[in-house]
Amino acid sequence: MEEETNYGRLSNRKLCFMVFLMFFAVPAVKAVWPMPQMISSSADRYPLNPRMFVFQYSNGSSAQSGCSVLDSAFKRYFPLIFTGYMRAEGPRQHDDRIRFPLTDALFSVVVHVKEADCEGYPDADSSESYQLSVSSGLAALKASTVWGALRGLESFSQLVYQDDFGQYFVNKTEIDDFPRFKFRGLLLDTSRHYLPLPAILKTLDAMSYNKFNVFHWHIVDDPSFPYQSITFPDLSSKGAFHPYTHVYTQTDVSRVISHARLRGIRVLPEIDSPGHTQSWGKGQPGLLTPCYKGPAPSGTYGPVNPAKSSSYQFMSRLLKEVSSVFPDSYIHLGGDEVDFTCWKSNPEVQGFMQKMGFGTDYTKLESYYMENIVNITKKLNKTSIVWQDVFDYHEQIPVDTVLHIWKGSPTQIQQELSSITLAGYRVILAAPWYINHITIGQDWTIYYSIQPLNFTGTEQQKKLVIGGEVCMWGEYVDATNLSPRLWPRASAAAERLWSDERSTSSVTDAFPRITDFRCTLLRRGVQAEPLYVGHCREEYGGI
Amino acid sequence: MEEETNYGRLSNRKLCFMVFLMFFAVPAVKAVWPMPQMISSSADRYPLNPRMFVFQYSNGSSAQSGCSVLDSAFKRYFPLIFTGYMRAEGPRQHDDRIRFPLTDALFSVVVHVKEADCEGYPDADSSESYQLSVSSGLAALKASTVWGALRGLESFSQLVYQDDFGQYFVNKTEIDDFPRFKFRGLLLDTSRHYLPLPAILKTLDAMSYNKFNVFHWHIVDDPSFPYQSITFPDLSSKGAFHPYTHVYTQTDVSRVISHARLRGIRVLPEIDSPGHTQSWGKGQPGLLTPCYKGPAPSGTYGPVNPAKSSSYQFMSRLLKEVSSVFPDSYIHLGGDEVDFTCWKSNPEVQGFMQKMGFGTDYTKLESYYMENIVNITKKLNKTSIVWQDVFDYHEQIPVDTVLHIWKGSPTQIQQELSSITLAGYRVILAAPWYINHITIGQDWTIYYSIQPLNFTGTEQQKKLVIGGEVCMWGEYVDATNLSPRLWPRASAAAERLWSDERSTSSVTDAFPRITDFRCTLLRRGVQAEPLYVGHCREEYGGI
Repeated sequence: MEEETNYGRLSNRKLCFMVFLMFFAVPAVKAVWPMPQMISSSADRYPLNPRMFVFQYSNGSSAQSGCSVLDSAFKRYFPLIFTGYMRAEGPRQHDDRIRFPLTDALFSVVVHVKEADCEGYPDADSSESYQLSVSSGLAALKASTVWGALRGLESFSQLVYQDDFGQYFVNKTEIDDFPRFKFRGLLLDTSRHYLPLPAILKTLDAMSYNKFNVFHWHIVDDPSFPYQSITFPDLSSKGAFHPYTHVYTQTDVSRVISHARLRGIRVLPEIDSPGHTQSWGKGQPGLLTPCYKGPAPSGTYGPVNPAKSSSYQFMSRLLKEVSSVFPDSYIHLGGDEVDFTCWKSNPEVQGFMQKMGFGTDYTKLESYYMENIVNITKKLNKTSIVWQDVFDYHEQIPVDTVLHIWKGSPTQIQQELSSITLAGYRVILAAPWYINHITIGQDWTIYYSIQPLNFTGTEQQKKLVIGGEVCMWGEYVDATNLSPRLWPRASAAAERLWSDERSTSSVTDAFPRITDFRCTLLRRGVQAEPLYVGHCREEYGGI
Repeated sequence: MEEETNYGRLSNRKLCFMVFLMFFAVPAVKAVWPMPQMISSSADRYPLNPRMFVFQYSNGSSAQSGCSVLDSAFKRYFPLIFTGYMRAEGPRQHDDRIRFPLTDALFSVVVHVKEADCEGYPDADSSESYQLSVSSGLAALKASTVWGALRGLESFSQLVYQDDFGQYFVNKTEIDDFPRFKFRGLLLDTSRHYLPLPAILKTLDAMSYNKFNVFHWHIVDDPSFPYQSITFPDLSSKGAFHPYTHVYTQTDVSRVISHARLRGIRVLPEIDSPGHTQSWGKGQPGLLTPCYKGPAPSGTYGPVNPAKSSSYQFMSRLLKEVSSVFPDSYIHLGGDEVDFTCWKSNPEVQGFMQKMGFGTDYTKLESYYMENIVNITKKLNKTSIVWQDVFDYHEQIPVDTVLHIWKGSPTQIQQELSSITLAGYRVILAAPWYINHITIGQDWTIYYSIQPLNFTGTEQQKKLVIGGEVCMWGEYVDATNLSPRLWPRASAAAERLWSDERSTSSVTDAFPRITDFRCTLLRRGVQAEPLYVGHCREEYGGI
């Protein structure tokens, strides 16, 4: 890559090799991304006629017509399966009959679901497994939950392709599929930059194409507080970048939650404290710790003031609202990067340290604060997720708390995985997938090559790694560059988290498949950037 | 940046400092980017009423109504000056009269141009200087050419701002402005990825907001040949990614040229040879050198075959077409990165080397080839621009040839600048602005801090540096990520190339101005990515 990084141009040799690979980008048999656990397909292909194509519920299925999740999925997937069809000529065009003669046989996608949870929300234990059997005239899709059925519909939609004459085909295929990890998250940061609602909804769409199932909403932080709280409206009216144009109303939030639900995606809210709370101070005077310069307040503020009982009362009222607004049974409580300088400078905090017998160990103070917040959350019948810092300080926290690894060198990350799981805590791995860190070149291969379970530990410990998360921090990202930075780079992590590592270990094998999948994303209107030199049959049109 | 590059999150201290800076992002007096050579503005401001605002030609102006360049500029700049006005309510809305009473005084932008070149094209010597004087009810804009008037209109449009109630204002201002460098280029690469026409046209729009004046169209290269040639239609029908969807027809090309002309932008075509021509071979058998493996051809091809007279006949016919299609008096002939391996392997080329007495020095062969191409171009009355490699090999090339520096360490670049200008050649500096090289963080500061004339040489030598160029190579860039990668990062180079280095040397002073300019770009529909944490009053809407 030397020449490349110096001149941004590649040697002909490397170029030819890669372009040679490109020609496999549109294979005879359409691949599925992320790779299913088991897939076998033959060269036998069946033509599909959009006008002779139906979704159906099988007789035995507990979900039947009226199932909101699947009915809307059918509506959504028809134009995704028959891309270009609606756009190019619309379903009722005259020449449509010539192109797709009614004499064609009917093709049915028959869905069978065991437990119909059509009005519920996906949760941490929801099964997403499914079986898909595509034969002449029939695609039989079986799943134990509607969430599994959604994953199967996504896989089916990726199996359909058009030949050069525009005819749709699907090959004879057998798929038996389930996710490797239960938690496959993507974090968006709406505090460093405000993301308009459409940007969030489009991200949820793309997440579902990648089989991500958790939207980690890092909704507030130091720079701004866009969440419009019912209990504390001043937090956004004074703490957001703008009280009207740069906030998420309750309506906005419920739109995000229901958009996500229909795609089998959980919405995990993060209320990060005691640090990362500068913006909170504007709407909630007295919450943050006044920093002192010698004997007098300096006028600046630090983390939430852990010495005041009012802080905990505020937090418990805020968390009570959040846990009623967000249906998920988990809440992310943050707890990262607490700067002790301001606490140390404050006489009230110093006095509290004495009173509590913490001496001068401020990690004890942070522990004390976080324990309180975690217990508040527990009383609200929610399970806590916290950044690894909370474990690193050895707080006494409930054993069902989930730790979130966000920092360290590869070796440090392995050690952290070992020690956290050894202590019996469940863990989510985010550190290797800080996707806001961009470089020129094919950095997707880095995200693809991560081995989440490659650390010293027993089988039992490995089971405690419940998944991973792609993090898109917002310092340099807003609606202008979110999509091309996310996709298809995050797709590499998506396959790592869903698929069997043994069958997806080769970057070279993955390259033509992810290149083809990126073209699929483009066709679906996702502004997914190119992986390397080449083209898609349909380039991005949204210019 | 350690913490940032490790964790993608910044310390509160740095965050606060930067956010503090942000508050200067919308100054009382609107700044102009790139910074004019001389600007003085007072706090006196005049309200502007869109319904009482006119563009006029002064009586003495040689350009009058009917001047295509300026008439269309007036039409273009009205909605740019009164952003939100057309969109929000349209010019004829009822409440418009209430908001903008007709009793308001008329405000006129009166344009005076010395030489009316209304139907011509901007060229290498076109003056772009202008004087702008904004006072009560009048903005007097004087320029010697229509191209200078365009620059003045852009500056005026940036002076206008809205207060929190939506009222438009402009402050009393005096500007005397001219570009530091005559050549301020931006390169797009349409071979590694095809860029749909709208992506190119939108880039030209954004270039004009940044006062760039040369669109360097690297139109063909190894991966694809999208230029649809009249003389050699097979080049694109066989060498493009797709013969219909991924080509530039003659109509497309003339649209680009006229769109650029109306914005005072030259279109400089690059026909890069003898290397970077793999895609040419498909449509022009016999042009490329067959590479040999021992005694037999290996089936692969190298650069254009310099031993065949047919190669030069082909090139002269192709260049003849190109020089008639593109009106600019310059043509870029490439000449970079020629790999000698294939030439060395080919018996015919070996024989030619003997015949010419080049011994085994293949740089002599490349020199011979490039001299021929440059002379062909000279006969077509065009001036050649070539990449620095051509100079490095000491070819005998006409002294009016322009050298284009694209590689090397800062020190190497300084030496190259010294030696090229010492030899009396004019030079364009591109190497420091390879903007396809992305990193996390504020890399715009790197592009901003370049000092193009910081090399050892006489005043006469420095004068030979005619400008610089931002290069967006296409390995990892297409329509999905072009705009956010270009803007506002290229804007940093734009100011360096237009403005006085002494008054624009501080990155800290530039930060709030470029942050504000980036919001201006957003308002104008340019998908310009954020520079750092913060927000714009109007976020990007094109989601």
